[in-house]
Amino acid sequence: MKLPQFYIDDIIRRGLSEDINYIDVTSDYLIDEEKVSAARFVSKDSGVLAGIEIAMRVFTLLDDTVSFELLKKDGDRVQKGDIILTMQGHTAALLKGERTALNLVQHMSGIATATARCVELVKGTNASITDTRKTLPGLRALQKYAVVTGGGKNHRYNLSDAAMLKDNHIDAYGSLTNAVNALREKVGHMVRIEVEVRTLEELREALAVGADVIMLDNMDCPTMAEAVKITAGRARLEASGNVTLENIAEVAATGVDIISLGALTHSVKCFDISMRID
Amino acid sequence: MKLPQFYIDDIIRRGLSEDINYIDVTSDYLIDEEKVSAARFVSKDSGVLAGIEIAMRVFTLLDDTVSFELLKKDGDRVQKGDIILTMQGHTAALLKGERTALNLVQHMSGIATATARCVELVKGTNASITDTRKTLPGLRALQKYAVVTGGGKNHRYNLSDAAMLKDNHIDAYGSLTNAVNALREKVGHMVRIEVEVRTLEELREALAVGADVIMLDNMDCPTMAEAVKITAGRARLEASGNVTLENIAEVAATGVDIISLGALTHSVKCFDISMRID
Amino acid sequence: MKLPQFYIDDIIRRGLSEDINYIDVTSDYLIDEEKVSAARFVSKDSGVLAGIEIAMRVFTLLDDTVSFELLKKDGDRVQKGDIILTMQGHTAALLKGERTALNLVQHMSGIATATARCVELVKGTNASITDTRKTLPGLRALQKYAVVTGGGKNHRYNLSDAAMLKDNHIDAYGSLTNAVNALREKVGHMVRIEVEVRTLEELREALAVGADVIMLDNMDCPTMAEAVKITAGRARLEASGNVTLENIAEVAATGVDIISLGALTHSVKCFDISMRID
Amino acid sequence: MKLPQFYIDDIIRRGLSEDINYIDVTSDYLIDEEKVSAARFVSKDSGVLAGIEIAMRVFTLLDDTVSFELLKKDGDRVQKGDIILTMQGHTAALLKGERTALNLVQHMSGIATATARCVELVKGTNASITDTRKTLPGLRALQKYAVVTGGGKNHRYNLSDAAMLKDNHIDAYGSLTNAVNALREKVGHMVRIEVEVRTLEELREALAVGADVIMLDNMDCPTMAEAVKITAGRARLEASGNVTLENIAEVAATGVDIISLGALTHSVKCFDISMRID
Amino acid sequence: MKLPQFYIDDIIRRGLSEDINYIDVTSDYLIDEEKVSAARFVSKDSGVLAGIEIAMRVFTLLDDTVSFELLKKDGDRVQKGDIILTMQGHTAALLKGERTALNLVQHMSGIATATARCVELVKGTNASITDTRKTLPGLRALQKYAVVTGGGKNHRYNLSDAAMLKDNHIDAYGSLTNAVNALREKVGHMVRIEVEVRTLEELREALAVGADVIMLDNMDCPTMAEAVKITAGRARLEASGNVTLENIAEVAATGVDIISLGALTHSVKCFDISMRID
Amino acid sequence: MKLPQFYIDDIIRRGLSEDINYIDVTSDYLIDEEKVSAARFVSKDSGVLAGIEIAMRVFTLLDDTVSFELLKKDGDRVQKGDIILTMQGHTAALLKGERTALNLVQHMSGIATATARCVELVKGTNASITDTRKTLPGLRALQKYAVVTGGGKNHRYNLSDAAMLKDNHIDAYGSLTNAVNALREKVGHMVRIEVEVRTLEELREALAVGADVIMLDNMDCPTMAEAVKITAGRARLEASGNVTLENIAEVAATGVDIISLGALTHSVKCFDISMRID
Repeated sequence: MKLPQFYIDDIIRRGLSEDINYIDVTSDYLIDEEKVSAARFVSKDSGVLAGIEIAMRVFTLLDDTVSFELLKKDGDRVQKGDIILTMQGHTAALLKGERTALNLVQHMSGIATATARCVELVKGTNASITDTRKTLPGLRALQKYAVVTGGGKNHRYNLSDAAMLKDNHIDAYGSLTNAVNALREKVGHMVRIEVEVRTLEELREALAVGADVIMLDNMDCPTMAEAVKITAGRARLEASGNVTLENIAEVAATGVDIISLGALTHSVKCFDISMRID
Repeated sequence: MKLPQFYIDDIIRRGLSEDINYIDVTSDYLIDEEKVSAARFVSKDSGVLAGIEIAMRVFTLLDDTVSFELLKKDGDRVQKGDIILTMQGHTAALLKGERTALNLVQHMSGIATATARCVELVKGTNASITDTRKTLPGLRALQKYAVVTGGGKNHRYNLSDAAMLKDNHIDAYGSLTNAVNALREKVGHMVRIEVEVRTLEELREALAVGADVIMLDNMDCPTMAEAVKITAGRARLEASGNVTLENIAEVAATGVDIISLGALTHSVKCFDISMRID
Repeated sequence: MKLPQFYIDDIIRRGLSEDINYIDVTSDYLIDEEKVSAARFVSKDSGVLAGIEIAMRVFTLLDDTVSFELLKKDGDRVQKGDIILTMQGHTAALLKGERTALNLVQHMSGIATATARCVELVKGTNASITDTRKTLPGLRALQKYAVVTGGGKNHRYNLSDAAMLKDNHIDAYGSLTNAVNALREKVGHMVRIEVEVRTLEELREALAVGADVIMLDNMDCPTMAEAVKITAGRARLEASGNVTLENIAEVAATGVDIISLGALTHSVKCFDISMRID
Repeated sequence: MKLPQFYIDDIIRRGLSEDINYIDVTSDYLIDEEKVSAARFVSKDSGVLAGIEIAMRVFTLLDDTVSFELLKKDGDRVQKGDIILTMQGHTAALLKGERTALNLVQHMSGIATATARCVELVKGTNASITDTRKTLPGLRALQKYAVVTGGGKNHRYNLSDAAMLKDNHIDAYGSLTNAVNALREKVGHMVRIEVEVRTLEELREALAVGADVIMLDNMDCPTMAEAVKITAGRARLEASGNVTLENIAEVAATGVDIISLGALTHSVKCFDISMRID
Repeated sequence: MKLPQFYIDDIIRRGLSEDINYIDVTSDYLIDEEKVSAARFVSKDSGVLAGIEIAMRVFTLLDDTVSFELLKKDGDRVQKGDIILTMQGHTAALLKGERTALNLVQHMSGIATATARCVELVKGTNASITDTRKTLPGLRALQKYAVVTGGGKNHRYNLSDAAMLKDNHIDAYGSLTNAVNALREKVGHMVRIEVEVRTLEELREALAVGADVIMLDNMDCPTMAEAVKITAGRARLEASGNVTLENIAEVAATGVDIISLGALTHSVKCFDISMRID
Repeated sequence: MKLPQFYIDDIIRRGLSEDINYIDVTSDYLIDEEKVSAARFVSKDSGVLAGIEIAMRVFTLLDDTVSFELLKKDGDRVQKGDIILTMQGHTAALLKGERTALNLVQHMSGIATATARCVELVKGTNASITDTRKTLPGLRALQKYAVVTGGGKNHRYNLSDAAMLKDNHIDAYGSLTNAVNALREKVGHMVRIEVEVRTLEELREALAVGADVIMLDNMDCPTMAEAVKITAGRARLEASGNVTLENIAEVAATGVDIISLGALTHSVKCFDISMRID
């Protein structure tokens, strides 16, 4: 899986513009332009790496003569102390790119690591872990890529590629059944339809009208287990709301198909990686 | 303090493009274009609000007829249950803008709230709380604005507006003294110079050469207290590294002038706000 | 259904930049800047209107004092001679915007009109008319919007929002069954899976593995009718390839669910509308 | 003739962003990233090729390791079945670029082929075939390039580079003579002036005032022949309006210098080319 | 004459981004956001005003509540001490926009003033004053607009809208005659052709082949006078090279039609205007 | 010192888009696409070179096969007649890039040369030469880089990276002392504070409140000398206003630390360099 290069380059250029703007008054004035150094990325944490090629690209955009040896790749588990990457290039370029490169790979590895932890906790159940649209503006592609790298799956990418009916949509049509049918009349055949339900009664209505996916919104575990039984495979069930590391195994044990977690992307703990210049 | 409008608009457009792309297949097909609703933003957490006008702007860019009543403004403390904002506008626009608006204001309020907590913990000491360059690419201005909103101060915005000498710069000149003097020869008169030191000996050298600011890198508290004594106001001292909510009061008690925390912007816990459409 | 304003504005600005670049050497030198005129858009053809608000926006971006009275709206059938729109504004702005506005509304109305003709021809059958990804770079949103305006439906918007397995994907896994199963392991739960088949044998395999949608690639009508019988509602069937105005009714009569036509967007005949300035 | 690379790259990136957005859920999940294939472009129609290097560039922007052998180049006549291009590269990149590359080269070859047909039909006469400003927003440069590739010539590129006086301009000055003279006072010396006329009387006035080019707007052939006689080489004459494949030879036979056709760019029939991956 | 608004807005946004970037650390921290002031632009020089509406737009983009009273408009002669503009708005917005607004209007008025001086010096002759393509990247439209505002005319806007044959083009075809004829075969009918000549012999060849405009490259005045006589109105003659304020009247007296000066845009002396906030 | 490549590329693309737009109607139609030439840049003036690698980049962006031999580099003194650069590449690319490349390097070398002249005139004094924010929108980075290349230093880059208190800021707080103290409460610790003063009394107040830098606004030389005496090294003093080549040595002799000149960037005389194609 590979994000389009020009898309990544846009994000990197935005990051470098913010961080350099005009010049690096320290390195541009103090470091001889011709000076060359070796550097390495060292993990200071344990988890799953994501975004390392994007971090490399930061240096390439500043100085296309930088060369790399990649020791760990996206999706690899890394331990504290592991060398992830070594590189050689102009010292000034290494110093200028350091912060932007680390900001990206640390954020993405933080997401991948948190996702992997959730995936680990639900192992052996039917449940897959997915993200949400609760992402940081301008960074959605990187964040969703990191979720996949960590072993999760992607929920819909945006409002255009799949339908999700909530209260307001349903109220506008008088009933869930009417709303889903109205949507089916209009929407393209490649669009999956998910419906949010809060009760088992709503679940039954959603099943009857043939929803592809049904989101069980903030239900407790016994109710979700009951929902799974009622559904009997006729639709995919998504558990959403109040899922934490503490209760995720229990949620998964109810038999739901998908557990979606906003926190994977809206509350990211950065994964510590340092860069050492020799 | 007001960020330039066109700067914010760029971020919002990027966010909306990611989230809508073409159309909202649910709302565009189900909600009558002329339908109008009222909506409100309700806090589900307690902390400091930041970014609410940016959230409002999301709706305005989708539909310039949306009207607002702002009940809490940036910098205000909000409690769980507080109504922050009420608005009226086309239902479809409210639904389409919801996620992007919340993603922004929740992230920014998360930063402001964390900053305010730190500021509270160092109250009564000399220390101010600042951010770092450990920000998310494309979002630095919003993140740094949120730190100020939470009562913190901004460290340098980028590599261009202030100098910070680290190991690699110093090594290139044989000594800290040589490096600072070399930089002074070249850098503009509006640029402040900060030097990273790891020992009290280095501190003394930095003081002797007249550094404006000295960063005490990962020093323990007794050493920092000693550093404060040695410095005696001749430079500003910044504590950096391994500062947590647990030890921040102790760090501040050493008498340092500035405590900088990467976590304020690189590991943000989103502040929960919900939008209710009536 | 409403495309995001900033998205449309980008396309319009690109169009105006191409068409004006610096100034309009004729109108800028000859028309008094204060001069005001009335103008109207008149249909010179019969069909379905699409893009009229986008055309209006062209003038607004050049001169926000232009006022409009809209007599026909998107989706309306118009006849030769119908007045679609009247407006008042600075003469120079009307002259400068004319070509870009017409280029947009004529192209989009051409698409809507062709779509409506196809929809008309399959009336009474099960078939819906959809577009493809054979669109003009930079104009996909406008083209797909026009298809919907003409009564058609949208196929997937892009490679990200739904899966379509072709020969190359299937070959890589040894069999259609293996490929679909491999994809299911990885893809998010909101992604629908379509499979291209060329024979009834392949169709049976696709049905067995539970494909959501099956594309009957260049099949003749009797074979498609057989495919419909075999499928018996277990998947949605899409007829694709060699569909023309001449045979579309026959194709629809086979009972397929979807007929997709690249020509709707890749070979557009512009719909003639003229602008008259009084 | 070579369009600036960065200009083309912008159009391609826009196209790829529309078509990929995040990832290709089919190929990114199913095709091994390291897998390499050969592919070829095969003509399924007969006509004039245009845009093949632009199509190649699509793949290069996705994967700069793709290598090409170009068998036909822009301006070449191709027959049904001709191999136009062979290439080798990562299978996933070939699959992701296919649609955008074909959309571009098919559209451009459609324009070149239609232009060549018109040029053929007027062979032996004085007339050259030109485009108009009736182009698709964002694609003007590609469309005008394709017209030249097909053997046509370009009318003015935009409103800035040549003057064209129409009714509204003339009315504002009381007479054609006054309007042309007023313009001459102001316009730069590198700007050619064309005047639209509807009658032979207007033609005579335009000739008297020394217009460089005179557009004969919707005149019938006998009147145009008369216009040619009257003009006797004192200005260039452009026939415009209601020119079709049926009557273009007759129009050319009147002796006009230029025949401009909006349909070359506003109503393009795409030229069928397919891509086969081995 | 009015430049497209979105074009100007792009330039202003670029200027404001450079000048503000994040915040104005002085005004944002010291000036109460609600504070309102009056301000005025005062001329500190005598000359021709250009760009005043663009300067106003700078403030509007920062704060759309700023109101203006415009006392002098583009093209007006202003004297030292004249009030050009008064305005009212948020003090912080006035302070933030000041430098960008002045940078634009001072540069443009400098161009208009220099142009007007040249126009004045050639009064009574046949010669018009034009600019060249020697402009500052990103500012060509503003610079060429300022030349017109000062009473000059525009040479070609870019390489696309008119042809100019120089040595290298002519050498490639063996002779000036061959080169012009070759170009005529290919170029559109709206493109004017200018030829650079260095001797009267070349001039005669250019006249014989029917060049529209002939540039007399670095000729002395007697030779140019002879050229005028030889030409006898058969082509327009442009004097170029080594024209200064000292010799421009003499050059004009030779009877040439056009005098082009790179210095109008490549060596601009800024026109002093100050902003006073009350 | 190296500006970020992508930043420069943006400026170049903007310049090339202005200058080429669609095609070069002369070179694209007359020069064989395969033709290759050698070319050189020759200085026609004496001064300091700046921007030569940026000029080279112009050609590379048009044709990445152009090869260069650089004989003079940024910061070198060049004499009339010196060859600066030789290159080889496609003739058409050389012709198309010529104007944009020269426009950039001539403007930048003009700035560097003027700066070097000022630096020369103040040699032996304490004074350094700096630029201001009076730059041309879109070109600030290039202009400030050229000042450094000429031996000058940069004043603050923008409103965000250093504070400068003027009348309006001071008035809002009742006194200079109050205003500086208010700012210190809020501003980050990396921001230097400069205060504008008009009298020696104000100077004393600024010194007392500990301003980092004090601007002596339009003071005469004897007063500035007195200011230097009073200050006695407690702050850096900047002379600003009415400094010319005639009086700059006298100003420097007063002992001020910095002399800032808006004219370095707002009134640039272009440095003549020509390109010869063999």
